[in-house]
Amino acid sequence: STLESEAAEKNKDWERENQSETSHNKTLLLPDRWKPCRQTQATVKECLWKLSCCLGSVCGMEWYCYAALGILTATLSFFIDLSVTKLIKTHQWLYMKLDGNSLLQFLCWTLYPACLCAVASSFSHNICPFSTGSGIPEVRTMLSGVEMPHYLSLTNMFAKLLGLICTLSAGSTVFLGKVGPFVHLSTMLGAYLSNLCTLIHANKKDKADREMLVVAAAVGVASCFGAPVSGVLFSVEVMSSHFTLRHYFPCFFSAACGALTFRLFSVWSGDLETLQAMFKTNFSTSSPFHPLEILLFALLGLLCGAVSCFFLFLHRWILKLTNTNPFLIRMLTTEKGLYSGMVVFLLACVTFPNSAGHYMTSELSMKKLLTSLLDDRQWISLSHNASVQPLLEWSSSGSPVYLSLAVFLLMKMWMLVLVCTLPLPAGYFMPVFIYGAALGRLLGEGVAYVCSTGATTDQHWASINPGGYALAGAAALSGAVTHSLSPALLAVEITGQFSHAVPVLLATVLANALARSRQRPSFYDAISISKKLPHLRSLKKAFPWLPFTSISQVLRANPVQLQKAAEPEEVQHVVNTCTDAQIPVVDSHETQILLGFVLRSELMTSLSHWRTETPEKHLDEVCSIHPTSVLLSPQNTIQEAHSILNLLGAHTLFVADMGKLVGVITWPEMTGILKDLVKEI
Amino acid sequence: STLESEAAEKNKDWERENQSETSHNKTLLLPDRWKPCRQTQATVKECLWKLSCCLGSVCGMEWYCYAALGILTATLSFFIDLSVTKLIKTHQWLYMKLDGNSLLQFLCWTLYPACLCAVASSFSHNICPFSTGSGIPEVRTMLSGVEMPHYLSLTNMFAKLLGLICTLSAGSTVFLGKVGPFVHLSTMLGAYLSNLCTLIHANKKDKADREMLVVAAAVGVASCFGAPVSGVLFSVEVMSSHFTLRHYFPCFFSAACGALTFRLFSVWSGDLETLQAMFKTNFSTSSPFHPLEILLFALLGLLCGAVSCFFLFLHRWILKLTNTNPFLIRMLTTEKGLYSGMVVFLLACVTFPNSAGHYMTSELSMKKLLTSLLDDRQWISLSHNASVQPLLEWSSSGSPVYLSLAVFLLMKMWMLVLVCTLPLPAGYFMPVFIYGAALGRLLGEGVAYVCSTGATTDQHWASINPGGYALAGAAALSGAVTHSLSPALLAVEITGQFSHAVPVLLATVLANALARSRQRPSFYDAISISKKLPHLRSLKKAFPWLPFTSISQVLRANPVQLQKAAEPEEVQHVVNTCTDAQIPVVDSHETQILLGFVLRSELMTSLSHWRTETPEKHLDEVCSIHPTSVLLSPQNTIQEAHSILNLLGAHTLFVADMGKLVGVITWPEMTGILKDLVKEI
Repeated sequence: STLESEAAEKNKDWERENQSETSHNKTLLLPDRWKPCRQTQATVKECLWKLSCCLGSVCGMEWYCYAALGILTATLSFFIDLSVTKLIKTHQWLYMKLDGNSLLQFLCWTLYPACLCAVASSFSHNICPFSTGSGIPEVRTMLSGVEMPHYLSLTNMFAKLLGLICTLSAGSTVFLGKVGPFVHLSTMLGAYLSNLCTLIHANKKDKADREMLVVAAAVGVASCFGAPVSGVLFSVEVMSSHFTLRHYFPCFFSAACGALTFRLFSVWSGDLETLQAMFKTNFSTSSPFHPLEILLFALLGLLCGAVSCFFLFLHRWILKLTNTNPFLIRMLTTEKGLYSGMVVFLLACVTFPNSAGHYMTSELSMKKLLTSLLDDRQWISLSHNASVQPLLEWSSSGSPVYLSLAVFLLMKMWMLVLVCTLPLPAGYFMPVFIYGAALGRLLGEGVAYVCSTGATTDQHWASINPGGYALAGAAALSGAVTHSLSPALLAVEITGQFSHAVPVLLATVLANALARSRQRPSFYDAISISKKLPHLRSLKKAFPWLPFTSISQVLRANPVQLQKAAEPEEVQHVVNTCTDAQIPVVDSHETQILLGFVLRSELMTSLSHWRTETPEKHLDEVCSIHPTSVLLSPQNTIQEAHSILNLLGAHTLFVADMGKLVGVITWPEMTGILKDLVKEI
Repeated sequence: STLESEAAEKNKDWERENQSETSHNKTLLLPDRWKPCRQTQATVKECLWKLSCCLGSVCGMEWYCYAALGILTATLSFFIDLSVTKLIKTHQWLYMKLDGNSLLQFLCWTLYPACLCAVASSFSHNICPFSTGSGIPEVRTMLSGVEMPHYLSLTNMFAKLLGLICTLSAGSTVFLGKVGPFVHLSTMLGAYLSNLCTLIHANKKDKADREMLVVAAAVGVASCFGAPVSGVLFSVEVMSSHFTLRHYFPCFFSAACGALTFRLFSVWSGDLETLQAMFKTNFSTSSPFHPLEILLFALLGLLCGAVSCFFLFLHRWILKLTNTNPFLIRMLTTEKGLYSGMVVFLLACVTFPNSAGHYMTSELSMKKLLTSLLDDRQWISLSHNASVQPLLEWSSSGSPVYLSLAVFLLMKMWMLVLVCTLPLPAGYFMPVFIYGAALGRLLGEGVAYVCSTGATTDQHWASINPGGYALAGAAALSGAVTHSLSPALLAVEITGQFSHAVPVLLATVLANALARSRQRPSFYDAISISKKLPHLRSLKKAFPWLPFTSISQVLRANPVQLQKAAEPEEVQHVVNTCTDAQIPVVDSHETQILLGFVLRSELMTSLSHWRTETPEKHLDEVCSIHPTSVLLSPQNTIQEAHSILNLLGAHTLFVADMGKLVGVITWPEMTGILKDLVKEI
């Protein structure tokens, strides 16, 4: 039948495409006649070419890129961790050596992190101002289709990497994490690798580009903790609004490579004996919790949800303040280093172990804080035991455990809000995770106390495990703040503790339900809105009518267009004034019936010949007019236009009303529309 | 500005909508004057109304529906398990009682499952022929947008439920599972609940309908094993090609409710002491495996991938045979019960413990088979120990463990392929999972044997854990057969064993890579293709050119249309001949310029009045012509049209070429196109 013959034709098309690709590769690798060592070069190129053929016969080159991306990201992550550990150990060593001299100890405690943060700030200020902050809001804006080349530049990578190491080395005083900037770093790595990939497969540019960024974002989270599954899920939840299943397998493949490399590095470096979880716990698995404790976990979830709402409210308030207060604006635009140094000095004064830090275990690093909070022993019963008591970090000051936890929670709340204003590369996920763990621990210890003093004679209730509550609290709070559920899985993956999976998930779901109610923006949404990034999903939270605005209201009037009978002069003018890749062609300027489009690149190549040789010919005789794909109508909403641009992977969509051209929507146009709409408010 | 005033207007629109909804609810609940007990009814309705208001003020009614769906599904799952256990125990009891009389034992062993399967087959044949098979291919076709009301009927639910219980009660002889039909059952439950939901919210019909089905599919998998996370992920991977993040949270919420209920039931029934994994393992967590074992896990992954390719090849072959062999076709259309009974009798003869069953541990139930395979002891060292040996199920016959495993693998392969032809409700996930576990176990025992006899003096290699290989093999094989990665997480969730997460994921990824190469169809794809279901993603595997066919080739010529100046007679004719909800309106039949569309329902209501009162008026004076949304062009591919229909949630898309109407694409039209294209081949 006709269909079968067509199928055969299509197959031929594919083969032809593959052949053209192969020949393209060959021409790339042909020896250049004007260069020295032609013979050697030719041999090397021949070998490379054979190798690439050999590799390509097993699976597509992009899979090697995905594997390389995972391995490179994990290596980067491990070396960041290594340098941070060294820098923190140096600080601790210095602080110990100065024991006895309070003033010098104070100076060492405060100036070390202050200097590091000041350096990180001025570094990013002077080298690349786009490197500050978490990076996740920008990455997800890029993944939604907007091009932001500044955010993928090499200088940005450099500034972000050094800034991140400085920030993390400032330790638990500054209380900042790694996830956000690391995702940004891995996205940059992904962009470079995808450029490499396109060098080999020249005709697959756009698709590979996008796919690699999606994979890179997933690998970033996965390699950060060596947690492949939750890494991929976190990136899906936070980054995208529609997830294409085509990306699912590459993401997991790359994330598995990354997580494996990350854990193997830990084994080789001697940190761990074998491939294990980062914060391994040893909860009892025979009877992890009583079925009735489920209610307590649900209560914890609601509590975490409420706390997250309060935290997000404070966060939005301080973001607004930094955007409106003239003093802060001036400080944050011109004196970034000074501002960071001052704020961190203030924080360090508070956490100095001889001041308030005495009551909030400020000597522990972030990692040790989390490990101690996930301890499965009941501190309340241990603290009565004089022989064990000094071993407990949280009651080493002699104060009761509750007081330490309460002071920690109260102080860290405002400190966390304050550090959100620091202009340096920093992640905000881990601090919230630890804060949630402390919140859960407080509840768990409270329950343990009530059970030990109460009238319950049940053996189980007496041996309740507060570590489980800490785990659930961590997942619930970080999930509520980021509006995602994957922290529940992350909590399981980084502790290797599966017995509490169901209650942890329950707490996270309830906390999320509370945090998402009434269309509240998440942490990343708030940053996007404050930075006015053209990210539709975030803007929707602040301006709920925005996605439902019809495009007729925002279209540029009189779009650039050519008529069928256009002459060289008109075409020359249009090519000079307009940069769109596709230029619509109409029947005539009067009727405006849309016929199709011409490619600007085609026009440019044929124009000089046309002007000199055959100036009497019309446009439709010189250039082929391509038929349009999907047409939008003026009644379509911005949301629909956005989704269709994304779905088709198109660069240009034409808007027509009863066949007449009304406007053109491109990605830059869409970005501009969103920016304008937000600016007007 | 104008935009702000518009925003205010939009807000008003929303409020008005909410009000109309409220008043709609009120009218529903107003007392009916012609019914008895008016006062009581009114009071009850008043109370219900207040309750619904009260519940609605906490969160939307749909959330209660999601929770109810989770709880109901879990209850159903638990009661299926309960009845199956009772029926299997009855069989075992009877078999034991007949000890000593081989003939009676043989009859009991063979006739019990044969009768059950014959009953299941004739039951589904007579009550609802749509209830046979897995159900997953049909569910995912429905989720892709196609309406298949037969598959959601009450009789189907009844037939599927009883058939499933019979099939599962036939035990490990038939070797079939629960997942597929259970997902189908939960989808039907979801459809009923969504009807209930729409009774309350009359104006949200379409969206809620679709959303509930997506959630129900996820809950089905989650409640089947009490594994919420992997349940949701499995349904995402298998069911959808684009996943909307909006569905993510409802899915997890409902799945968490379901998993929690399922596990609480297990606790209350006394099966488990507390909420635990179904197949809990106790692998050593201090040093679960040597880093070099990673290579062995990778090898296992590749092995499972190869086995899956072989199995899928056999499966496609037998599906083709049942569609072409005249004898099989006649048997499977008219004598379903007889066919099932005969096949199962044959299988039971083979598994009879005094025949070949002696060497393949056929006395174990499916659940016990899996538990025994995941044992963390080395059978090879145990079988040398005379005191422990009789306790081992796999060497109880006195034959070496290898022989039992090898016979099991060889026999089960053809048996599994054969049972795929049985016309009864049955799942194919669990058998493949167990088969993979046996494959992994064989490798693990082999490695343990080599290590124990080899020259390695390393303590670790001597104490290798074959259970870990069984876990990885199970995940890898089931993942490869279904082309999904979530079995890796499922393996972790149902065993509660996190220490092996990374190698299990690695094996699953590699097995998948092998199984997916060269565009091979998955197990569910093969069924879809064989049943010619209009599911684009599956059809793509068999007919790779299909999604890229342009719609101009498949459009119905001369679509139904009305001209602007149409008179009542023409309109009457069109309304009578066409059932589409939206009828396109053109300028005139000559120019064919598309102006918009009229709603058929609007035409029907206004038609009689128009014909009698004002027959001289034209269509555009009587009815409002709605502007069209997105327009397709004839060059768009089937894939693009499909995605845009899905994305916009639209029922009708118009195809226009330079403003002229060319065709109409609706869901029934799209279904018809796919069916026609496939039939032609």
